[in-house]
Amino acid sequence: MNPSTSLRLRLPALVLMLEVLLLVLYSIFVTYDDNADSKMQNNVTKPMDNSLYRDYPFFADVQVMIFIGFGCLLAFLRFYGFGGMVFNFLTATFTIQWAILVQGYFQFYHDGKIHLGVINLINAEFACAVILISFGAVLGKTSPVQLLVMAFLEVPVFSVTEWAVLKYLRINDAGGSILIHLFACYFGLGVTFALYRPNLKNGHVKEITSYHSDILSVLGTLFLWVFWPSFNSALTLKGDDQHRAVLHTFIGLSSSTMTAFALSAVFNKNGKITMADIQNVTLAGGVTVGASVDMMISPAAAYGLGILGCTACYLGYRYLTPFLAKHLRIQDQCGIHNLHGLTGLISCTAGICAILLATEEQYGPSMYEIFAHRSPPLGDPRLLELQQLIPGLKPGLGRSAQEQALYQVAAIFSTIGAAAAGGVLTGFILKLPFLASPPDDDCFDDELFFDVPSDFYSEVKKVPLNEHDSKV
Amino acid sequence: MNPSTSLRLRLPALVLMLEVLLLVLYSIFVTYDDNADSKMQNNVTKPMDNSLYRDYPFFADVQVMIFIGFGCLLAFLRFYGFGGMVFNFLTATFTIQWAILVQGYFQFYHDGKIHLGVINLINAEFACAVILISFGAVLGKTSPVQLLVMAFLEVPVFSVTEWAVLKYLRINDAGGSILIHLFACYFGLGVTFALYRPNLKNGHVKEITSYHSDILSVLGTLFLWVFWPSFNSALTLKGDDQHRAVLHTFIGLSSSTMTAFALSAVFNKNGKITMADIQNVTLAGGVTVGASVDMMISPAAAYGLGILGCTACYLGYRYLTPFLAKHLRIQDQCGIHNLHGLTGLISCTAGICAILLATEEQYGPSMYEIFAHRSPPLGDPRLLELQQLIPGLKPGLGRSAQEQALYQVAAIFSTIGAAAAGGVLTGFILKLPFLASPPDDDCFDDELFFDVPSDFYSEVKKVPLNEHDSKV
Amino acid sequence: MNPSTSLRLRLPALVLMLEVLLLVLYSIFVTYDDNADSKMQNNVTKPMDNSLYRDYPFFADVQVMIFIGFGCLLAFLRFYGFGGMVFNFLTATFTIQWAILVQGYFQFYHDGKIHLGVINLINAEFACAVILISFGAVLGKTSPVQLLVMAFLEVPVFSVTEWAVLKYLRINDAGGSILIHLFACYFGLGVTFALYRPNLKNGHVKEITSYHSDILSVLGTLFLWVFWPSFNSALTLKGDDQHRAVLHTFIGLSSSTMTAFALSAVFNKNGKITMADIQNVTLAGGVTVGASVDMMISPAAAYGLGILGCTACYLGYRYLTPFLAKHLRIQDQCGIHNLHGLTGLISCTAGICAILLATEEQYGPSMYEIFAHRSPPLGDPRLLELQQLIPGLKPGLGRSAQEQALYQVAAIFSTIGAAAAGGVLTGFILKLPFLASPPDDDCFDDELFFDVPSDFYSEVKKVPLNEHDSKV
Repeated sequence: MNPSTSLRLRLPALVLMLEVLLLVLYSIFVTYDDNADSKMQNNVTKPMDNSLYRDYPFFADVQVMIFIGFGCLLAFLRFYGFGGMVFNFLTATFTIQWAILVQGYFQFYHDGKIHLGVINLINAEFACAVILISFGAVLGKTSPVQLLVMAFLEVPVFSVTEWAVLKYLRINDAGGSILIHLFACYFGLGVTFALYRPNLKNGHVKEITSYHSDILSVLGTLFLWVFWPSFNSALTLKGDDQHRAVLHTFIGLSSSTMTAFALSAVFNKNGKITMADIQNVTLAGGVTVGASVDMMISPAAAYGLGILGCTACYLGYRYLTPFLAKHLRIQDQCGIHNLHGLTGLISCTAGICAILLATEEQYGPSMYEIFAHRSPPLGDPRLLELQQLIPGLKPGLGRSAQEQALYQVAAIFSTIGAAAAGGVLTGFILKLPFLASPPDDDCFDDELFFDVPSDFYSEVKKVPLNEHDSKV
Repeated sequence: MNPSTSLRLRLPALVLMLEVLLLVLYSIFVTYDDNADSKMQNNVTKPMDNSLYRDYPFFADVQVMIFIGFGCLLAFLRFYGFGGMVFNFLTATFTIQWAILVQGYFQFYHDGKIHLGVINLINAEFACAVILISFGAVLGKTSPVQLLVMAFLEVPVFSVTEWAVLKYLRINDAGGSILIHLFACYFGLGVTFALYRPNLKNGHVKEITSYHSDILSVLGTLFLWVFWPSFNSALTLKGDDQHRAVLHTFIGLSSSTMTAFALSAVFNKNGKITMADIQNVTLAGGVTVGASVDMMISPAAAYGLGILGCTACYLGYRYLTPFLAKHLRIQDQCGIHNLHGLTGLISCTAGICAILLATEEQYGPSMYEIFAHRSPPLGDPRLLELQQLIPGLKPGLGRSAQEQALYQVAAIFSTIGAAAAGGVLTGFILKLPFLASPPDDDCFDDELFFDVPSDFYSEVKKVPLNEHDSKV
Repeated sequence: MNPSTSLRLRLPALVLMLEVLLLVLYSIFVTYDDNADSKMQNNVTKPMDNSLYRDYPFFADVQVMIFIGFGCLLAFLRFYGFGGMVFNFLTATFTIQWAILVQGYFQFYHDGKIHLGVINLINAEFACAVILISFGAVLGKTSPVQLLVMAFLEVPVFSVTEWAVLKYLRINDAGGSILIHLFACYFGLGVTFALYRPNLKNGHVKEITSYHSDILSVLGTLFLWVFWPSFNSALTLKGDDQHRAVLHTFIGLSSSTMTAFALSAVFNKNGKITMADIQNVTLAGGVTVGASVDMMISPAAAYGLGILGCTACYLGYRYLTPFLAKHLRIQDQCGIHNLHGLTGLISCTAGICAILLATEEQYGPSMYEIFAHRSPPLGDPRLLELQQLIPGLKPGLGRSAQEQALYQVAAIFSTIGAAAAGGVLTGFILKLPFLASPPDDDCFDDELFFDVPSDFYSEVKKVPLNEHDSKV
């Protein structure tokens, strides 16, 4: 056993510290929100009006995506199924606990307490999705200790960025194209840039799939695919907005999937289908519709966005990922730049177009609900007028479409900047000794961190590893 | 590589054509329905009353069945796991997109537009289930190009049949026994009849399972089993009707499952359990309760139907499938005639009995909601009387139970006729050259259409293929 | 084939008898409850107020846990994947049918009928969870015939215990720590005590996992993990109570998971992670928060309970299970005493503390809803006062916190007593001949009860079975 990668002291010590920290902070700061607090119930509150029933179904769907969807998807490597699935489990579990506190401090803190309800859990799971996407860039090349440290650092950077963008720039981003996908992508790229491994420049002999790992990974894709409409719509306004978010996501994923099959066949020299494309590129449409997912963009536009995003994603896997690895020292293991970066940029562009094109004729007065910052400010007589039509409409900032678009652009650049800087910094911290970083030879190999069953060895040995099935 | 089965040009060209067609039709014809259109929201509409919250949970459950349940179930062959799972993914994705248009034209078209909401997606997924069932008849013996062409043709035939039966015959078929299961079955048999492969008369050396593929397939069965109550109840009336549909489906599946274990053991010459029975026959009860699933048939009747359907299904696998293959040139790969045809016929018979036995004493006045066509016609004084008891009761056709039963019979025969004719015709079209039909030797083999990882070859080679585990 | 373990006659005969019994009892006793009966609908009932919409989402989640979560989790053995998954399927299916009747007789019986709705199914699934947990103690060492007999006997013992405890002792046990986990655990230990196999004292050569079975089992863990909040909250009061149950379960599972990773690494001599810990110990928190899951214990307390339960569970696997096997003849295959017994006891203790510490200041008046037996009795003027604040508050028994705590203690001991006695008795009945009990050599081997595909043999043969990966 390599003593420098033994988890015996490192992992328990880190977990213990984190748990003590979390337990203390929970004790001091976390209480129930009004919907979970028995003291807030009275003879007016109705049990079935509890927010639980609006939020829990979406929460449960996102849970499946985080723990099962991501878990299976990341288990695509032949000798790294345990690592993909189990480190995803550990990282996700810690991240959500940590995000409840850090993100909760920025979003659900008042009267000296973070008020906890299922809605916080949904938000924390979005933060978790960010960290898991970033994890994709360094899959197989990091120890669980490093992953926990990464999550520990990424959650605050993300929460601050999210808070600043939402508070000061005030953007529309229902599906999280900017704050989830772009942030996650560029943070992950920053980390992997800092963790550059020159010896893996020409790939790694264990960077292959097996027949079973490919099937398991497709299963993960399917879970993500099936529940993605819940992800994209979990935080929209209720009613028609959420309804459109479901429709657009479904349509975008569908056209993206068909396109992925076509591109996979056309670029394969034997005219066959490549499983890695089915596992990844099919999902591009879900990201691409994100920024405009609740707007009246029309079903056809969602269809077109799915095709566009998928094509960009595919070409990214084919040409950009190798380029980044070769020339920019960015070894992006799962190609997150294609599935989340390129598609995220397209999504943001589409969102800006949708904002610029939105008119009251098309949306009706509820336009000022969707584009909340375009709602007239307090005191404007137009506000009272609109509140007749849409009771409960909140005063906004009276922004024009063009102004809103500029703020979206500002959000894109500042998010990318914060993410990349945070990522690089985090990456250098992950290079500290004592974090059990795997040696180059032992990357992508479960034997390093797991007690593996006996057939693992016989399988490793029996396969002639020189026939290297490259995996983007 | 066999150039005649390369997907390099065929698949992308077909997908491109289909996508252009879909995109154009979506642009011209598809708009949001009232629940997804922001312009239709006003100071009376309440967000939480949006149809999304009634439909989406059932939609999500059916999604899991379609993409994960079917996908895993169809991956039961040792060398065709990619094909089963991935072609299911492709076919389902295209079919739903196409059904949104074609079926939408017949069911959700007014004012020159197809109005889209989650309810259309549920309907489209039912159409998708039809195509996937038919796919079961030709699994492993068709290229993805053929599957897309089959879906392209089957959706319109199904939609027209569905429309005609619902508009002119007006039947009760909540669980889709007639329109889903019988149609799908006889269409699929028609296709496989036309695609008859004489060289596969005595089976195929690759038509075997593996330990892992059997487990994966059972996992698919379990997903179908668990969510089948949602499938059977997704399109019933809300309230007690949907409640009964859930109960009956659960009970029918339960008795069917126990029966399947018993039959599997009793007919096995070594007194062991056969996995293929667990994978398929256990599900028979879900189909068998379909036609009467929302009626007041009593829990015991659902129980009995589960046993009956399962027995017919089992005997079908054992005796009828080989007979059809040998004497009628119908090579029914997954035995859809047993799981959907025989059970569908029993279900229809049971539905007719339930219709004939239904009385107002047993159902109360809401009988005229369940059997909507027995409701008195407009102008009948009895209608006003009933509307006092059941507000919102719609006028019907004043049919007697016997009349309704006759229409059900007519629906059965016309559906079977349309399906079989459409299937045979489609099958002959699938024989056209350029559709990449797999050669006999390469059936049930992922190597033909997929880049397979290196362990696939070593596995294929290492297994002595002469010990042929026959698989019904 | 060993004639004494052939299922050819035994299984079908037993199933036939059970089905006839069930069908007769369903016919005589089971009818629809008011929410599923069309006759009970009138011009006041609203379809969307049907109990289906409150109960079905939780039912569906628990279904996934029972059939897929348990199924995959129990498939962790290398040569017993079919057995784990498929016998779980059979046992669960029968148990639910049987519990609908037996438990229904105690809980939903009036006017000479058992009234059936989805709420009964949820209750029956809880009974099913009990039997499946007990099954964990004898996994791989029992035939399906024995399992059905065990379920046949355990369901009535459980239902009577549950009924007596709820009717006479009247306890708080929302997550089922006493009635589900403690009962299941001690019943299972009783059975395995009676079925003691001296030849397996030093383990069994086939008691190992494989790379794929470990992954499948983790997948089961993840399904249980994701839906456990639904399990723990399915039978709480609606509203804030259910909301807290979701939060506490999620938090408890999270802290438990992190702790499991730490303990796994610290006790492994190579500083690696052991998959069995990830598969089992991570879940301990879900049980540990059970008894107090709906109370105002604070999020931090749920966090602490998760850590505590996980630690006890881990140490149990490490030290107590071998001790029980060696000195008390209790061969607890899946270690249910750790995951359900020890954690259950901690949970009960925590529940009692929470009861003793509960004050009206902290809970508000709805304290008397959560602790229903502390509500003032009928006629007490305090009751009317409280009913002003909480409309619909039911009269209780006017118990003090201390009294309630004593009843909880009484419930713990009587449940453990009834379970252990019932288990031992059932175990001796399972030793009757003709129940196809597997010979020692054929334990943990699918070949005994299944037609296995050809690669099963080649795999069995190729693995040098002397390198025994011990599995707790």
